[in-house]
Amino acid sequence: MTVNSNQTQQDLLARRKALGPAYRLFYEEPVELVRGEGVWLYDASGRRYLDAYNNVPVVGHANPAVVEALSRQASVLNTHTRYLHDGVVRYAERLLALFPDALDTAMFTCTGSEANDLALRIAFEATGRRGVIVTANAYHGVTMALADVSPSLRPVGAHVRTIPAPCLLEGTPQAVAAQFAASVDAAADELEAAGTPVAALMVDTVFASDGMYADPSEALTLAAERVRARGGLFIADEVQGGFARMGANWWAFQRDGVIPDMVSMGKPMGNGHPIGGLVAQSRLVEVFGRQCRYFNTFGGNTVSSAVGLAVLDELARLDAPAHVERTGQVMAQALDDLAQRHDCLGAVRGQGLYWGVDIVAPDGDAAHAARLTQRIVNGLRQSGVLLGTAGRNASTLKIRPPLVFQPEHAGILAAALDEQCRMAMR
Amino acid sequence: MTVNSNQTQQDLLARRKALGPAYRLFYEEPVELVRGEGVWLYDASGRRYLDAYNNVPVVGHANPAVVEALSRQASVLNTHTRYLHDGVVRYAERLLALFPDALDTAMFTCTGSEANDLALRIAFEATGRRGVIVTANAYHGVTMALADVSPSLRPVGAHVRTIPAPCLLEGTPQAVAAQFAASVDAAADELEAAGTPVAALMVDTVFASDGMYADPSEALTLAAERVRARGGLFIADEVQGGFARMGANWWAFQRDGVIPDMVSMGKPMGNGHPIGGLVAQSRLVEVFGRQCRYFNTFGGNTVSSAVGLAVLDELARLDAPAHVERTGQVMAQALDDLAQRHDCLGAVRGQGLYWGVDIVAPDGDAAHAARLTQRIVNGLRQSGVLLGTAGRNASTLKIRPPLVFQPEHAGILAAALDEQCRMAMR
Repeated sequence: MTVNSNQTQQDLLARRKALGPAYRLFYEEPVELVRGEGVWLYDASGRRYLDAYNNVPVVGHANPAVVEALSRQASVLNTHTRYLHDGVVRYAERLLALFPDALDTAMFTCTGSEANDLALRIAFEATGRRGVIVTANAYHGVTMALADVSPSLRPVGAHVRTIPAPCLLEGTPQAVAAQFAASVDAAADELEAAGTPVAALMVDTVFASDGMYADPSEALTLAAERVRARGGLFIADEVQGGFARMGANWWAFQRDGVIPDMVSMGKPMGNGHPIGGLVAQSRLVEVFGRQCRYFNTFGGNTVSSAVGLAVLDELARLDAPAHVERTGQVMAQALDDLAQRHDCLGAVRGQGLYWGVDIVAPDGDAAHAARLTQRIVNGLRQSGVLLGTAGRNASTLKIRPPLVFQPEHAGILAAALDEQCRMAMR
Repeated sequence: MTVNSNQTQQDLLARRKALGPAYRLFYEEPVELVRGEGVWLYDASGRRYLDAYNNVPVVGHANPAVVEALSRQASVLNTHTRYLHDGVVRYAERLLALFPDALDTAMFTCTGSEANDLALRIAFEATGRRGVIVTANAYHGVTMALADVSPSLRPVGAHVRTIPAPCLLEGTPQAVAAQFAASVDAAADELEAAGTPVAALMVDTVFASDGMYADPSEALTLAAERVRARGGLFIADEVQGGFARMGANWWAFQRDGVIPDMVSMGKPMGNGHPIGGLVAQSRLVEVFGRQCRYFNTFGGNTVSSAVGLAVLDELARLDAPAHVERTGQVMAQALDDLAQRHDCLGAVRGQGLYWGVDIVAPDGDAAHAARLTQRIVNGLRQSGVLLGTAGRNASTLKIRPPLVFQPEHAGILAAALDEQCRMAMR
């Protein structure tokens, strides 16, 4: 980097005070990005980075078909759902076609947070209750109601109980599923005793912020059975796991056949355009609709619907569930190979194109592992590969690239990680 | 309309069941829109409608400069605020330049709801309290926390007290301001007695859903003084009143010189692109930032920032505060003239390009007035002018066109309303 661009970047960093202190940047040396294409991002100096982190640009940065749909519709009409328009209806139909028949109603928001918030509102209205069960390090979004059910952000509300995510349980998949279901029962007992019986069990279906659990098992099915037996609903938060992220299926909940009462979606839905959505069983929306009208100014507007449809088209063209499954197998092999060869790499968890790799310090110390993780992630950034961290100790590598990632990109990532593991342990 | 397009529209109405029963359409015969340009909207049969209702497409439907900025940035890079990018910083700076110096920090969301929700979160963290005061028929958004403070949607939460909006108070502007301030004090007393002392007074600065109050007075200044004296904050919800909607100033709160602790924005910010934002005094965000990180996946992304900047450019090119003030005077004159001539038209309230006109039934009956309002609004729709209803009895005409509305458009609107008043009273 030249002195000049360095100066410009220092200025830009200083000017960011306009955004206040609640915003955080990635990396010790933040990346200033100016352009993206497919799985590649470019900085101000023209340097190229492999994007192995961003799950939003799911069909590739600046996907031409999506940009074309966005530009075309924006130049014709951008208006809301209180006028008739074919676009939002077609989008709802196309989206619902990807779900089991019982999930027959689609509602649109602008973000996954708004979708999860709406799911809770519907659950509270439909059950007449307020209790919520979530996993121990869950993250469900930025609204106040969601901060209350997001222990990864702050202590949960008085109407909320947390249970260990399957990734923290031990034993066979069957044993894990049984323990997980038992903890739903125990939490429902506690909520009932506290006078706030359970309205919903809300889970990120891949347990991303808990450290990732994507194994096929009956964990979701059994948990849903338990919460329903207690009069509550099962809400699948597919903001992370949805749209073929895990491969094989369109939705992460499909790995064990459960049919949720509601499914929330966000991030990849518009490839960066702000779209979120909720798919629900109509009986629930009917109860809600009797008591509340629902209007989201931008949710399901004509432009968002056109973009959402274009993203579905591009995912279909990619044959996303199959493509992600194949590329995921290559990724799994590459990560397993590396874990065999490097002591600093511990458990490799994940599926499709969502992977967590635990970093292990030689002395087994958690703080040391977190520092080691920082060193590796920042080293990768310097070597031109972008990924992130996850887990309660921030000692898990988070690998979650755009779905247009190809086996050759997995190879580039693996080579860079190999090098950084060597450097970090020196 | 031909039999064929009628059939198509019936099919489309039937297919809307995919969206469930919580969505509502405008008008007895819904309008199917396919194209927009400036202040005009076009239906599937090519028929033109004057848009006198939509406050989102503030610089005109399909504004070419905004569409160009959207398309250009989307084709280059759409990514989030955890990488450095000049766009979001420039947007924050440009936005803050429109505010008094004390409001020195900008945060971005995707909707006005998310902005109001964030304002409450910051207020709760900064004050360590949970009490909220809102006006009697307020609407602040769709999240769960906002439904709790939106009596127009449903009964408020236990931590919320409502006060009459200035539009329901009688007397001189000075008397109204004094009564409004006194009711803030009384509500703060009640909240304190209930063990939930006041964290914030949140008001839509034009009191839109309460029936509209835009008179220059000290109402906001005195109310802000009172709530601060009680240890609470003053949050100006400018989702309706902001971006020169009321003319003369950029923000509705500026009419009486109050400086809010936080200002939330939404609807017109992206001319239809999902952008919301919060501007705050930095001391508050510092407290919040120490306790919480904040990240909104799409909020302030590179595309949203480019669009937001383009909207600010277009508003500046229009010289929006002055243009709206001038056009607003023409509108005021036209509406006052009509009110003189038609018994069914009662009080005309408003300023700039936001007007409420009460509809009055000959027998003084509220239900009759509401039916009369429906007749007029649906008659206008049939005659090619789109506007809406407001007020607790839905007997106020809501006139709130794109800001590119010109005096000639006010003339078209007035002529159509004149005709509908004659027809409605037959």
